Amino acid sequence: METAQAFLDLKIPVVDLSADFRLSAAEVYETWYGAHRCHDLLKEAVYGLPELHRDKIKTARLVANPGCYPTSCILGLAPLLKGELIQLDSIHCDSKSGVSGAGKTMAASNLYCEVNEGLKAYKIGEHRHTPEIEQELSRIAGQEVVVSFTPHLIPMDRGILSTLYAKANGDLDSAKLYNHYEEFYSSEPFVRVRPLGTFPSTQDVHMKNYCDIGVHFDPRTGRVVVVSAIDNLTKGASGQAIQNMNLMMGFEETSALI
Amino acid sequence: METAQAFLDLKIPVVDLSADFRLSAAEVYETWYGAHRCHDLLKEAVYGLPELHRDKIKTARLVANPGCYPTSCILGLAPLLKGELIQLDSIHCDSKSGVSGAGKTMAASNLYCEVNEGLKAYKIGEHRHTPEIEQELSRIAGQEVVVSFTPHLIPMDRGILSTLYAKANGDLDSAKLYNHYEEFYSSEPFVRVRPLGTFPSTQDVHMKNYCDIGVHFDPRTGRVVVVSAIDNLTKGASGQAIQNMNLMMGFEETSALI
Amino acid sequence: METAQAFLDLKIPVVDLSADFRLSAAEVYETWYGAHRCHDLLKEAVYGLPELHRDKIKTARLVANPGCYPTSCILGLAPLLKGELIQLDSIHCDSKSGVSGAGKTMAASNLYCEVNEGLKAYKIGEHRHTPEIEQELSRIAGQEVVVSFTPHLIPMDRGILSTLYAKANGDLDSAKLYNHYEEFYSSEPFVRVRPLGTFPSTQDVHMKNYCDIGVHFDPRTGRVVVVSAIDNLTKGASGQAIQNMNLMMGFEETSALI
Amino acid sequence: METAQAFLDLKIPVVDLSADFRLSAAEVYETWYGAHRCHDLLKEAVYGLPELHRDKIKTARLVANPGCYPTSCILGLAPLLKGELIQLDSIHCDSKSGVSGAGKTMAASNLYCEVNEGLKAYKIGEHRHTPEIEQELSRIAGQEVVVSFTPHLIPMDRGILSTLYAKANGDLDSAKLYNHYEEFYSSEPFVRVRPLGTFPSTQDVHMKNYCDIGVHFDPRTGRVVVVSAIDNLTKGASGQAIQNMNLMMGFEETSALI
Repeated sequence: METAQAFLDLKIPVVDLSADFRLSAAEVYETWYGAHRCHDLLKEAVYGLPELHRDKIKTARLVANPGCYPTSCILGLAPLLKGELIQLDSIHCDSKSGVSGAGKTMAASNLYCEVNEGLKAYKIGEHRHTPEIEQELSRIAGQEVVVSFTPHLIPMDRGILSTLYAKANGDLDSAKLYNHYEEFYSSEPFVRVRPLGTFPSTQDVHMKNYCDIGVHFDPRTGRVVVVSAIDNLTKGASGQAIQNMNLMMGFEETSALI
Repeated sequence: METAQAFLDLKIPVVDLSADFRLSAAEVYETWYGAHRCHDLLKEAVYGLPELHRDKIKTARLVANPGCYPTSCILGLAPLLKGELIQLDSIHCDSKSGVSGAGKTMAASNLYCEVNEGLKAYKIGEHRHTPEIEQELSRIAGQEVVVSFTPHLIPMDRGILSTLYAKANGDLDSAKLYNHYEEFYSSEPFVRVRPLGTFPSTQDVHMKNYCDIGVHFDPRTGRVVVVSAIDNLTKGASGQAIQNMNLMMGFEETSALI
Repeated sequence: METAQAFLDLKIPVVDLSADFRLSAAEVYETWYGAHRCHDLLKEAVYGLPELHRDKIKTARLVANPGCYPTSCILGLAPLLKGELIQLDSIHCDSKSGVSGAGKTMAASNLYCEVNEGLKAYKIGEHRHTPEIEQELSRIAGQEVVVSFTPHLIPMDRGILSTLYAKANGDLDSAKLYNHYEEFYSSEPFVRVRPLGTFPSTQDVHMKNYCDIGVHFDPRTGRVVVVSAIDNLTKGASGQAIQNMNLMMGFEETSALI
Repeated sequence: METAQAFLDLKIPVVDLSADFRLSAAEVYETWYGAHRCHDLLKEAVYGLPELHRDKIKTARLVANPGCYPTSCILGLAPLLKGELIQLDSIHCDSKSGVSGAGKTMAASNLYCEVNEGLKAYKIGEHRHTPEIEQELSRIAGQEVVVSFTPHLIPMDRGILSTLYAKANGDLDSAKLYNHYEEFYSSEPFVRVRPLGTFPSTQDVHMKNYCDIGVHFDPRTGRVVVVSAIDNLTKGASGQAIQNMNLMMGFEETSALI
């Protein structure tokens, strides 16, 4: 985290790919990660999800690039909260990720034969991306939002699929739901809402900077189901970092991205 | 379905691997599958989940072998409902399956390059295994239970992992939850409750007839999270059929099964 | 094949991705593929391997884009024949390909569960790419060359690795062998000779237009072993087609290619 | 290697899964592996390939269980040498293995993302299984035989496929070749010769103790091509160890094996 300060002292703007500046409340950071040594920067840093914070990113010196899971969950859920379409205490995020999300760590659990033909959940109720999702959803809702977040490891290289559930507020149907998403993201270059009745596969966003979203309202349960797909190494990491850099530097937002 | 009747006429007991006799209410069957031509057998057939219906299976002429997804979801949720530990309108079943669950169908969606390095949800809110799950949970609860059920396709051959969520009723903690499961399944030969804090991978049950279960209570959200793993071709199909046959014929229940 | 003629009549140059114009001898074509209906074009067509036929490609109206296996085998073996380093009757091509080489054909053998966790050889001694390899090697050698060619199917999406064997002529050692390859391909933009003692993986050329080559001389057997890796959908198909188009149209040869 | 001696001192027969006693010539062992500290046992140990050494195994105190690659190569080639059907200086072994062959070593090269969607050759001309293959082939031939052996890593868990090439001696055709193999292995419980024109996949021997073999004579090149498939963890390791134990203890050879 001190490195960010060093660059800023040299007047070099920073997009930070680590988790150091994603949580604006120091006490939340310290609960999940440990001591934070740059409280001032924490207040200044902008959460680098252009679809929510584009204007602030344009003028920021320090942008905290979001985590891969949070990118897929927040983009999938934001329209529901902005539109006040769901009950805030009913949100579940069931996320599935390819193995590159674990980095190149030399852990037995990352060996080929331990991953191949296997499927598991991990860090249930305690994954560090949980407060990041909650921070952004709470900002939209204007009140504290708590979610269940369960990550899973899938035997493939790249890609995250998040299946998101919430209880609808009052009357809703699939067409109304779809139209709300379609309008919400109508001018976004990197979010594609899928035609009603279809849902994205991670193959659709492989090596691309898109977040693809499909929505469904289930009248039997009164619940909304949203499926959100990204490539964890592109929109979930370096692609989004370039998108943020483009905004900060005044370049075309879509420059060098597909 | 007429074939089952033909065997029974010859006094040959039947374990049916199809869905024909899984739903005891003809109108529910016909809503999800189409016309049913053997209403009488529908009433007689026993749902072949030994952990719930062992005694009836022992004396049955016709056993309906459960679907793969329902086996994982019902075994994962049954203790919660029997113990009245959760709110009945809060159940979510997020299930993930290897490709062999789709059979050997010649569909483009089952080609290697369409599946490999991909991940998707399908038939959201409309998969035929939904009423099977609801039927068994409703029987336990003694009232109608409705669930969200979302199946996903995973790039691997075999295995189902179901991540199950529900809102706890009153006071609960992980130890209490674990003890309840441990006791509930203490004499079951094919259900293994994992030590608290650990969760099963599908690799743990690969080619075996076990259902492995891990449980977690999340005090932040007041929700229970249960992870249930089976091999869809063993406990989810032919292994369970042998287990049922063993019970019907008076053989040792675990005979020829690992 | 008539479509090629139709385009040429309109003065539109053609890069043909099929096998129709790869074999210049009609009788060889007809032995392996069946009747050929455009003998004149067969004589005119240029075999589109820029590393061997760049000048002819530049002025050609019709370029036959090489097969994926032949691209990997011919580029791996060409320096040995040009340098007269091997015995011509000693060549073995053992090639391994990802599944996309089979196209999107709806065959049971292409279903996920038939391919995954499996490995097999196919069309041993009778694959249609054999005469293509032999035609190009014979042209270099100035006499008829016959090879063993064995293709294998590998459980992955993309990539071909060919392991090539031949008996050395007279004195040879690994350094001499390496220097010959290094010089042979020194000005080629899309062939990379790997440092002595290292060999390429298909991951090195994934989604790229490169052919990566590693060489080894084994003093125990007096044999040369060459490993050649390409992406079958890039240098083995559409990437090479673009390279050929660039040459035909006077564009920069590397334009739009990585 | 001292552990083997310790067991023998206690009159406990040993099947050794390591490479310690596979090479009967100490100097060959030391060239490929380093110092050997039990020369006496080296002379006494029997190479545990039942198809070649069944009688000696039955009375042995110490059996050296063969390597996985050598099992597939030797079983594939033995009939050719016994029948004097090939030129001894023309043998090539191109072998492909799943990742479990590498054990559970914590190497970056065994991480999921390094293996998945990749394919490579390794240890070309220097793999330690080479002398083991040559020792057994030389014993059959009654003279020194040298081979090319090239191992490859395939993105799958289990299975070895070896594609074996040699130049035929005098007149041969596929039927004659097939009949020779069929007769050679007619009474072997764990070797299956595939019908002429078909070749095994590693899926055919998955988790089984079989070695499946397909043969082809190519009149164009005068070469024999043999494809040999085993499961590296069964016939290539522990399954074969049980087969050897069965023989040593006087049990039914096929006991506890499928």
